[in-house]
Amino acid sequence: MIDLRSDTVTRPTSAMLEAMMQAKVGDDVFGEDPSINELEEKSAAMFGMEAAIFCPSGTMTNQIAIKCHTQPGDEVICEKLSHIYQYEGGGIAFNAGCSVKLLDGNCGRINAAMVASAINNRTDVHKAFSSLVSLENTANRGGGACYDFNDFYKIKKVCADNDLKLHLDGARVFNAIVANKELPENYGKVFDSISVCLSKGLGTPVGSVLIGKRDLIAKARRVRKIFGGGMRQAGYLAAAGIYALDHHIERLAEDHVHAKLLGEAIAKKDFAGEMLPVETNIVIFEVKGRFTPKELAASLKEKGILSIAISPTQVRFVTHLDLTKAMIEEAIHIIEQL
Amino acid sequence: MIDLRSDTVTRPTSAMLEAMMQAKVGDDVFGEDPSINELEEKSAAMFGMEAAIFCPSGTMTNQIAIKCHTQPGDEVICEKLSHIYQYEGGGIAFNAGCSVKLLDGNCGRINAAMVASAINNRTDVHKAFSSLVSLENTANRGGGACYDFNDFYKIKKVCADNDLKLHLDGARVFNAIVANKELPENYGKVFDSISVCLSKGLGTPVGSVLIGKRDLIAKARRVRKIFGGGMRQAGYLAAAGIYALDHHIERLAEDHVHAKLLGEAIAKKDFAGEMLPVETNIVIFEVKGRFTPKELAASLKEKGILSIAISPTQVRFVTHLDLTKAMIEEAIHIIEQL
Amino acid sequence: MIDLRSDTVTRPTSAMLEAMMQAKVGDDVFGEDPSINELEEKSAAMFGMEAAIFCPSGTMTNQIAIKCHTQPGDEVICEKLSHIYQYEGGGIAFNAGCSVKLLDGNCGRINAAMVASAINNRTDVHKAFSSLVSLENTANRGGGACYDFNDFYKIKKVCADNDLKLHLDGARVFNAIVANKELPENYGKVFDSISVCLSKGLGTPVGSVLIGKRDLIAKARRVRKIFGGGMRQAGYLAAAGIYALDHHIERLAEDHVHAKLLGEAIAKKDFAGEMLPVETNIVIFEVKGRFTPKELAASLKEKGILSIAISPTQVRFVTHLDLTKAMIEEAIHIIEQL
Amino acid sequence: MIDLRSDTVTRPTSAMLEAMMQAKVGDDVFGEDPSINELEEKSAAMFGMEAAIFCPSGTMTNQIAIKCHTQPGDEVICEKLSHIYQYEGGGIAFNAGCSVKLLDGNCGRINAAMVASAINNRTDVHKAFSSLVSLENTANRGGGACYDFNDFYKIKKVCADNDLKLHLDGARVFNAIVANKELPENYGKVFDSISVCLSKGLGTPVGSVLIGKRDLIAKARRVRKIFGGGMRQAGYLAAAGIYALDHHIERLAEDHVHAKLLGEAIAKKDFAGEMLPVETNIVIFEVKGRFTPKELAASLKEKGILSIAISPTQVRFVTHLDLTKAMIEEAIHIIEQL
Repeated sequence: MIDLRSDTVTRPTSAMLEAMMQAKVGDDVFGEDPSINELEEKSAAMFGMEAAIFCPSGTMTNQIAIKCHTQPGDEVICEKLSHIYQYEGGGIAFNAGCSVKLLDGNCGRINAAMVASAINNRTDVHKAFSSLVSLENTANRGGGACYDFNDFYKIKKVCADNDLKLHLDGARVFNAIVANKELPENYGKVFDSISVCLSKGLGTPVGSVLIGKRDLIAKARRVRKIFGGGMRQAGYLAAAGIYALDHHIERLAEDHVHAKLLGEAIAKKDFAGEMLPVETNIVIFEVKGRFTPKELAASLKEKGILSIAISPTQVRFVTHLDLTKAMIEEAIHIIEQL
Repeated sequence: MIDLRSDTVTRPTSAMLEAMMQAKVGDDVFGEDPSINELEEKSAAMFGMEAAIFCPSGTMTNQIAIKCHTQPGDEVICEKLSHIYQYEGGGIAFNAGCSVKLLDGNCGRINAAMVASAINNRTDVHKAFSSLVSLENTANRGGGACYDFNDFYKIKKVCADNDLKLHLDGARVFNAIVANKELPENYGKVFDSISVCLSKGLGTPVGSVLIGKRDLIAKARRVRKIFGGGMRQAGYLAAAGIYALDHHIERLAEDHVHAKLLGEAIAKKDFAGEMLPVETNIVIFEVKGRFTPKELAASLKEKGILSIAISPTQVRFVTHLDLTKAMIEEAIHIIEQL
Repeated sequence: MIDLRSDTVTRPTSAMLEAMMQAKVGDDVFGEDPSINELEEKSAAMFGMEAAIFCPSGTMTNQIAIKCHTQPGDEVICEKLSHIYQYEGGGIAFNAGCSVKLLDGNCGRINAAMVASAINNRTDVHKAFSSLVSLENTANRGGGACYDFNDFYKIKKVCADNDLKLHLDGARVFNAIVANKELPENYGKVFDSISVCLSKGLGTPVGSVLIGKRDLIAKARRVRKIFGGGMRQAGYLAAAGIYALDHHIERLAEDHVHAKLLGEAIAKKDFAGEMLPVETNIVIFEVKGRFTPKELAASLKEKGILSIAISPTQVRFVTHLDLTKAMIEEAIHIIEQL
Repeated sequence: MIDLRSDTVTRPTSAMLEAMMQAKVGDDVFGEDPSINELEEKSAAMFGMEAAIFCPSGTMTNQIAIKCHTQPGDEVICEKLSHIYQYEGGGIAFNAGCSVKLLDGNCGRINAAMVASAINNRTDVHKAFSSLVSLENTANRGGGACYDFNDFYKIKKVCADNDLKLHLDGARVFNAIVANKELPENYGKVFDSISVCLSKGLGTPVGSVLIGKRDLIAKARRVRKIFGGGMRQAGYLAAAGIYALDHHIERLAEDHVHAKLLGEAIAKKDFAGEMLPVETNIVIFEVKGRFTPKELAASLKEKGILSIAISPTQVRFVTHLDLTKAMIEEAIHIIEQL
């Protein structure tokens, strides 16, 4: 099967697996796992920030960040399709007791004016207390859309002027960094916290890091413990992360080429409706005419392609490390024959 | 001043005050306040339901109902302008740990199709667990709009088919009942819980009742205690509620006439933009041209009328018990001169 | 019946009821109720603090204080029998997400050494984060026991040294003030927040005030709104509070005399086990021999005295405003005959 | 160093590491990781229960169980030294909004009579709602003390009679099973949920399983997602768990022998105060005379033994898979020389 469902399905390469096997480990609850320590330091340094914490998932790094930046009764400002609201089980309310102000953005992205107008009057006790803005780059449900870095600076200005914290759900931040030739350390200058996923495009089996100031990460360790996210000899997983940061970033460009090719193949089909611009490794398109999204996914599955009907009107493809050029060509061939 | 800010500003009539001061009271924490017991029984009976509980505010009755119907991690389906989301301090998340699915309705009202499409797939752990639908009748931010009762029945069907509870924020339910000549007991057949406010159109100084099945109200007593909403000799307040249920319901029709007259006067002005249909005691209109909403409110205040700039584009008037026909005529005169 | 169950059962005197009827009221949600404003200012001034907020109950003032001083995951240090842990429905966890460290004190009182040893190591993420100490004066379950003011100063020192907030559940603080001839403003110098109940010894029908710094009370208004504790024309209740602060403080000395007399009468009985020292208006004694506590309460009820079996081994009497000297004499007579 | 701090410090044996690296993995978020599926089925079957869920830690399995069995405002009954209260960051309140009723047991164990007397009156809204009993076997802070199975049956009876759920924190349940030759499936007959740790005595690097009925585990998957505990290709960790269940249970008997030897060596020392009975792999003893617990730990460390001052008066040793007979003999030699 050619698995286009998600970049989370990748399995470690043999080199990555070798790195895992050779990992030095210890009890991270005592702070003694050298691989985890190395990964945390390395990722913090890449983004020019003080500290990092390794967690079992991107949902946990996002949820910890939201909790650490807020009090119950606060409100989180984010795009209506954002992962933190749509796909984290209602965790904003469950874990942090926070409301959401949902903005109607452009391909999952919001801008400074939207943020400014979403801030509640803080002296009005009827309104939840606006305290955090969360952005997603790339925006999954926006078809892997990337922010213009200038928009980050403008949003940061609104946050600074209004005493709001700014979090990045960077589950696929390296796709944006590679696509737009950005410097990770510029992210560190803008955001109060960054969640970076190691198990999506980067190809590790498990894990994300939350990056931020030392104080924030100290608070994060406390929340991770409360959630039960503290692990013992998790250096085996961290070693995969270190390997990925060393070897799997630049190659994301291939995934982007593959996504573009798939998008072009789909665009020619009669059942293809509106397609979100293909900026990175995600292709999201409306399905019309002879298929519903679920029918198209079923039909593709029969022919050897796994995909996801991501909304009542859309199908999503995601390219990744486990898809070779030959597999993409095969997929295109299948699409053409459909 | 002619106070059109809200129907919450009323002061007891002398007859109501007399009823308050004659009230028999006791310690309600021991269940011994006869006036509270009478009010709870009377209001439950009116709506054809089993039990009721007296609380200090409509926010508390709503929040208790939301808490009793849900678990943390659940999702509440409601209109995007609904009071429970907009004006209760983020309580859905704070008190109940619940997410919201915000629907884009018509004058604050939603319909069965919208509800049906808003229910999350319950086997998908990424999604918050849809468990409660909350409606508001009349809809404050919808300009006091009333639901068609048939829509209640259709929504109830969707709820029953999908194991969802159905709550009514009936802060102004008597306005709808009077405007549409409805029977309160029909509400009792549709909703799992009804919050009825005594301090808005009904004119009491303090209090709301939450009405529902006996089991629900037993749970509600527990949550009221946890919030600290249990009061001692609150029969003085309950007596005002009993008086209001006996004497202040039918007269709401006058408030509706007054609101229509005010609406007609505003509609003739150059600064009046779109006005929501005036169905009950609320007039909400856009302000354009020579005033912003805040400027219009300020200008009216100078001339003796209090109003509220309820959104960046709208002003709201609310009519109520403390506004005589003469005061409404005076207000219209002032508006005409503006 | 001679009601010794609690000092919460009192009904307003006719003079207090007159003050209520004459109260000037307004919509407190708009900050326009003159009686509430006066009560808040008056009570803050009495304790030498900046601000106060009127709430429907002492449970709400305690719960708001706990919430405002803490974050979820924090730990509240208090005596094991304290009202906030025993009788507020689990609100510390429900409302504030906080753990408790329960200390085994002396008649409901703790001391500085106990507090010092109860503080968790803050760098150990396994342990809840100690952030608040809550005392109760008088201590209800300690038989109305009063703190020595020097103990307050010593506990305050531990709190200051360890960055802990210090709250007083002063449901019956005026009993302590009268019994020990203390100055209320000295409390204001020690505590970060004080909850004072108006509906216990002071004899009003409903209400408590939370007193503290301006910033804290601003946060408290937000939490009160979220709980639904904001009321409209509650000036009728506040007027009773103002009256009580003016007329019902010094007379608490009579309740204390009455309690002592009741205690002496009980002490002579064969069924009386250990009695907690009677320092104010509460008598708590063990019941042995021919009665269980529930049997004794039932037997007293038959003869015209209401009391409470407050634990599996103890009965409690509480004296208050509605008990005349004659009623106490009658109660003593009944006890003697038992 | 001879590391007696905890049985969590173990590193995989080479055979376990080999099993890990040969693991078949997939994306567990899609339910497609064969190793995780196998581990979950295997562990459920061992305890004669329907289903299981793999989590990153024992704290998470405990916290999920507590959350799934309760509502906010409920009360959890447990021993005062239990891990869920002492070492999970205040998670009972943070994650589940629950209070605790802390019982003063015997070496961390409670009995049926204690449980019965700890249940609050459910019709009294002042009291948190008792809904869950949680036991710990073996009891860590009780020196690895084991329950008599008859006590489980008696406690279960109290739970059944009072509609309480019964959870087992089985972080070290296999130590009890081996020490007392118990059948795991008998646990499945008593408990509503069992948390079993794979990374303590069993020696895997990471992970615990929560075991229970199918419905409970379905709810648990939802809560795990909300915490961010869902992992992708975590089969590498699960494979270690499978290996441990196959190879590392019976050998716990060696750890128990080692613990007894260490205990005997300590008991002969002048600085040894009261020692808890050594039933499994934990030795907890009071330190008196020439050392404080911290000084003793420091002194041992200098000589090559790591231990923990587990309370202001006690030191703890834990034996485990990474300690050979020679290392224990060396440790005893060091202790003798001290």
